[in-house]
Order: sequence, then C-alpha cells, then structure tokens
Amino acid sequence: MKFYDCKTAPSPRRVRVFIAEKGIDIETVQVDLGSGEQFSEAFRRINPDCVVPVLELDDGTILTEVVAICDYLESLYPEPPLMGKTPLERASVLMWNAKVEQLGLWAMAEAFRNSVKGLSNQAVTGPDSYPQIPELAERGRQRVARFFERLDDELAERDFLAGSFYSMADISALVVVDFAAWIKIAVPEEAVNLKRWYGAVASRPSAVG
Amino acid sequence: MKFYDCKTAPSPRRVRVFIAEKGIDIETVQVDLGSGEQFSEAFRRINPDCVVPVLELDDGTILTEVVAICDYLESLYPEPPLMGKTPLERASVLMWNAKVEQLGLWAMAEAFRNSVKGLSNQAVTGPDSYPQIPELAERGRQRVARFFERLDDELAERDFLAGSFYSMADISALVVVDFAAWIKIAVPEEAVNLKRWYGAVASRPSAVG
Repeated sequence: MKFYDCKTAPSPRRVRVFIAEKGIDIETVQVDLGSGEQFSEAFRRINPDCVVPVLELDDGTILTEVVAICDYLESLYPEPPLMGKTPLERASVLMWNAKVEQLGLWAMAEAFRNSVKGLSNQAVTGPDSYPQIPELAERGRQRVARFFERLDDELAERDFLAGSFYSMADISALVVVDFAAWIKIAVPEEAVNLKRWYGAVASRPSAVG
Repeated sequence: MKFYDCKTAPSPRRVRVFIAEKGIDIETVQVDLGSGEQFSEAFRRINPDCVVPVLELDDGTILTEVVAICDYLESLYPEPPLMGKTPLERASVLMWNAKVEQLGLWAMAEAFRNSVKGLSNQAVTGPDSYPQIPELAERGRQRVARFFERLDDELAERDFLAGSFYSMADISALVVVDFAAWIKIAVPEEAVNLKRWYGAVASRPSAVG
C-alpha cells in the first residue's frame, strides 16, 4: 500500500494519526499542496478530485476520503479498535466523526480557504477555481467557535466523543482544534471539559506526526 | 426503534429509501421542519443539532447522521447488503457516499439554504441563525452542475457508484439528483451514463417514498 499525505494539511493528518495508533508501517508519499502538485497530470490520474489523503492498494485500487481509508485499515488491522467494536459503538464513532466534519472541519475549511491569500481562486478544494467569499470566511469562524462550545458540553458527559473509548472521531476533532490556530481560534479558557479531553488526546504519541 | 423523518427534506429521505430497501418496518414520526418543529424544546432534547434524520433506539439511545444510522441498520439487518460485503466494498461505499455528500449534497444545501426566502436567517442547518450569502448560493449551483458532469464520467465505467452493486452511495446520489429540482438544476441531456443510472435507481420501489 501507498499513502499519499501532506504534512501541513488537516485531512491527511487524520489518516496519519490513525496509522500511528495502529502501529502499522505504510509507504508514505508527500504531495506538495503548497506548490500545486495536487493539480499535476500525474496526481490527477491518482485522484481526479485533487486532494489528499489517498490510499493506493497494491493492485492499484485507489481509496480516497478519510472515513473510507480508516474503515479499510480497521478491517485489515483490527487492533487497537478505533472505529468501535459493536454495531452501536461503530454507529457512535461514525456519528461523531460526521458531526465533527460538518460542525467543525468543514466550517474551519470555509474560514481558512475563503480568507488565506494564497488560495484566492481556490476557495473550494478540487480542480475547479472558485473565488473567495469573505462573508463565508467570517461565518466559518463563528461556527468553529460554536463547535468548541458544543464539544465542551458533550465532553462534560464522557471521556471521549463516541463514548468511554478513544476513536477516529477524537482524531478528527483533535485535527480541528489544532488546525484552528491557522484561523486564530483557540479553545476558550472556560471550556474545561474540552481542555481535559484535548490534554488526553494531544499527549498520545500518535498526535505528534 | 423510532425514526424521526421529514417527508420533504433530502437528508431523511436517504434513510427512508435505505429502510425501504431493507424491507423493515420502523415506527416513523414526521417532524414538521416547515413550521420549525425541529427548534421546539421537545425536539431539542432528542437532537440538539435540530436536524432529522434521527433514529431512537428502544433504550432511548439517539443516533443521528445518515451514515451512522445506515451503518447501524446494516448491522441489525444485513440483507440485502447496502454498505458493501467485503472490506474493500465497504470502503468503496463509504468513499462514494462521502464524495456525494461533499461534491453534491452540501453544495446543493448551500445553494438552497442561501437563496430560499423562508430560510433568510437559517442559511446553515441547526439551532443558530446565520444570514444568507447570495454568492454562496450561486457557487453551490455551479458545483452541483459540475457534480452531475463528474457522476456522468464515473458512471461510464460501471453500473453503480461504488461498483457493480447498488448501495447507500447510490441512494445519496439519487436524493441529490431529485432535490436539485428545487434549485432548478436538472441532469443535462448529454449525460447519458447518469441518465441510465438514474433510470435504474429511480425506478426501484424504494425511491417512491
């Protein structure tokens, strides 16, 4: 297998942390998003959506999208479980992963891509050019701040997002919290539950990569 | 179990079609999104994100998010399989479902919610008010049109989105194609592969509900 990564981008980091938690060794290729390598003819043949992460299997099959890549790796390497062990745990992980994406990750991406200078015509990931919408950047910032309040409320009730166990949903949320620094939003001081959770997940060795 | 639905909304329809394909009978409650029932105190206690679909289990556990609800129902009722039978099929379904959401469904929701009169302060689903951004509505429309081109290209190569088998990813895409009528975008005449696929999935009895 081959993992197409980009060290500076949030989405592939979700897979990178997942792989580190599994303790598996996968050949990794860095795609230089900064110089536009994702738009090259060579990379378009791998993923016409021009995004990472991508997992290329030994027979050439291409998997994209974080949830799909993680689910496939979980099937191949079940230990330690990161997607839940029972049907209800699985559903809870998928639910919280989806909530983190919709309430946090996509809002953060909106805020970032619609404001950063270097992306003035790349406000949406992918091969097509879309101009930035400054109002959308502002709305994204507001939504990320609300998302942190929401996480804090949820984490008052349990140790991790999907239950009493660390999972892929926590990895996704960790990536949002860390990348939010780029849009200058930090976890508020009063969010004690979110801070406690962050201390636990960010201190795992997998969070370093 | 109890399924909280809304007959006129795209997201719960994905679950409704999934349930019909499984041939299972679940008590269904209509939530009147048009009159704002999702913001009532009673519904907020069920789902603080104020959206449907919701699946309430007999012990009171709440599942939200389409992918989580479908995955749980697939575990309980494996036949007919709609999420893939092998690890690679599963990953392919999750990948295509995620692509349909990101390239199609969210773009369509942006176009709809940022333009429809009745949603002038509800441009984002959920309990918080956000004003509409007309530029975002236009960008969403452009992206949905591109998504239909992309689907047509993909469906030149195989019968269904995730492979040779009908799956949850097809259900998600069917819902996008049908709901796109509300933003006045139709499948273009020349998209013969998409039209062939649509004919196959829209004529299944499950598509009626």
